[in-house]
Amino acid sequence: MAEMNRQVLLVSRPQGAATLDNFKLVEAPLAPLADGQFRVRNHYLSLDPYMRGRMNDSKSYAAPQPLNEVMIGGTVGEVVESKHPSFAAGDKVVGMLGWQEYGTSDGKGIAKVDATHVPLSAYLGSVGMPGVTGWYGLKRIIAPQAGNTVVVSAASGAVGSVVGQLAKFAGCRVVGIAGGADKCRYVVDSLGFDACVDYKAGNLVQDLKDATPDGVDGCFENVGGDGFDATLAQMNAFGRIALCGMIARYDGAAVPLKHPELILTQRLMIQGFIVSEHMDVWPQALQELGGLVAQKKLHFRESVAVGLDAAPQAFLGMLKGQNFGKQIVKLI
Amino acid sequence: MAEMNRQVLLVSRPQGAATLDNFKLVEAPLAPLADGQFRVRNHYLSLDPYMRGRMNDSKSYAAPQPLNEVMIGGTVGEVVESKHPSFAAGDKVVGMLGWQEYGTSDGKGIAKVDATHVPLSAYLGSVGMPGVTGWYGLKRIIAPQAGNTVVVSAASGAVGSVVGQLAKFAGCRVVGIAGGADKCRYVVDSLGFDACVDYKAGNLVQDLKDATPDGVDGCFENVGGDGFDATLAQMNAFGRIALCGMIARYDGAAVPLKHPELILTQRLMIQGFIVSEHMDVWPQALQELGGLVAQKKLHFRESVAVGLDAAPQAFLGMLKGQNFGKQIVKLI
Repeated sequence: MAEMNRQVLLVSRPQGAATLDNFKLVEAPLAPLADGQFRVRNHYLSLDPYMRGRMNDSKSYAAPQPLNEVMIGGTVGEVVESKHPSFAAGDKVVGMLGWQEYGTSDGKGIAKVDATHVPLSAYLGSVGMPGVTGWYGLKRIIAPQAGNTVVVSAASGAVGSVVGQLAKFAGCRVVGIAGGADKCRYVVDSLGFDACVDYKAGNLVQDLKDATPDGVDGCFENVGGDGFDATLAQMNAFGRIALCGMIARYDGAAVPLKHPELILTQRLMIQGFIVSEHMDVWPQALQELGGLVAQKKLHFRESVAVGLDAAPQAFLGMLKGQNFGKQIVKLI
Repeated sequence: MAEMNRQVLLVSRPQGAATLDNFKLVEAPLAPLADGQFRVRNHYLSLDPYMRGRMNDSKSYAAPQPLNEVMIGGTVGEVVESKHPSFAAGDKVVGMLGWQEYGTSDGKGIAKVDATHVPLSAYLGSVGMPGVTGWYGLKRIIAPQAGNTVVVSAASGAVGSVVGQLAKFAGCRVVGIAGGADKCRYVVDSLGFDACVDYKAGNLVQDLKDATPDGVDGCFENVGGDGFDATLAQMNAFGRIALCGMIARYDGAAVPLKHPELILTQRLMIQGFIVSEHMDVWPQALQELGGLVAQKKLHFRESVAVGLDAAPQAFLGMLKGQNFGKQIVKLI
């Protein structure tokens, strides 16, 4: 039995951009299990944009991450020791055990998963929270018809890649927005989008216009800022916008929406949402997404940082778009 | 029989703010009626913010007002001569006969109205397009529950006054935003709103905060700009926003939405709408609104300009908020 755990704590709140100084790697002894508990060796930690919001001490939809505690985070791993009647050593589990090598749980919020046909790490991405986020925003908010044009920002990422592929399955023209030629090539060639606009190429507005000759009926917005402005300018009447992320705001600078009058002139619907408030759809969404991944119809890509000590740097890089696909940390 | 008509034409498009030069008053002979036509002496002309949008030659939900033609506008009046089987002299009618003293029609888009219990001019306001606009946005988009707080901008106006009174009937706390102490006093004392914030008093953000101690669940936005930003900052989770007007944009200057991230953090729904695209609700809405006016439960106020030649100046004043209640022009 392991006796020591390694953990990453939040030790200070960012002033502006998050920095490595906000985090601290510590070692801590593992307490013996109490009855009803089990211990998980985390194999993968998920790094997600929402974590940046939790680092602030501000009004939001979720409580702030407390200082000097283990950073919140989704994990997959294997039960290594159990005094819990429903979990046994060898069980593969997904849950929110945080930025640490070992998690101790009473089972609350922990689900067993089958890693036979779906890679364990996929339960942090396409078959996990990001996948359900994409599923919900596309199916329940945008609800596109075949022939519609759908624009997806952060198209190569964990959420965007699911949105775009599901929209293609629904018969839509799908246009991604991503940063860099490599990501755009991947989005078109490997994920099957019809087009992808490289926002780093310096011609975002015109490039998006060229890529959406019939306008835009649905927008899945993961980012905000210039890409959202450019998409809004292309929206057709009665278009629908699922607002999922505003990564451009997480560092504190206000990013206004330049032309809100388009919401009126084009009679648009915008819905902000948080997938954890729609738990009723998770079973259906996960079943569909797991089936598609097992059949190798739904593709995804991962950026893998190795070792818990690499987590803070990988997280900061992800906030700058340096990851390529779902950002995870391999812990074993 | 009258032989001459007086009309106001749009003769140039505004560069920035609309001016008197954009309009021209002309006299024109009345042609004899053809079979199937009837002539209406317009009693009242409605002046509405949407007209400013039509003066531009730009992409919008409606075609631009053509140059050198009679300005578009809603009217109520009386049939004075008819070669139409369904309309007879003496009938009171509402329709879109434009900025002119006499309108000639084949009956398309013209409805007979009963002026026995409802004043004729009300069919241009609370029992007309503005009333249905308020009804639709409140009932079908905001759909408030008793106890909710609803904020209404342009609260003393034709649309806002209906929204607020209907929201009160639905058991809501209702807070208006209006320009000036007189309008605010009217909104509270005569219309029965719980509070009204005077945006001209220079303390909009704090005043609105003070007036909405439990936050805001529904927003009926008639204006855009600072008031919309202030309301958005007060929105509760899952709030709903009916976006009806962006008067601050009609003169061409972009008015950004300062904090679009609130749509996400508060999981808001924003729906832009144009009431003429929801004709299915008009009969029900007009029946309810007409009943409430006839019973003197739904109050309204009018700013009446006298004579067609006063119309352009009254229109420009309305765009600046100088009207107090529904702006109409008395033509007879």
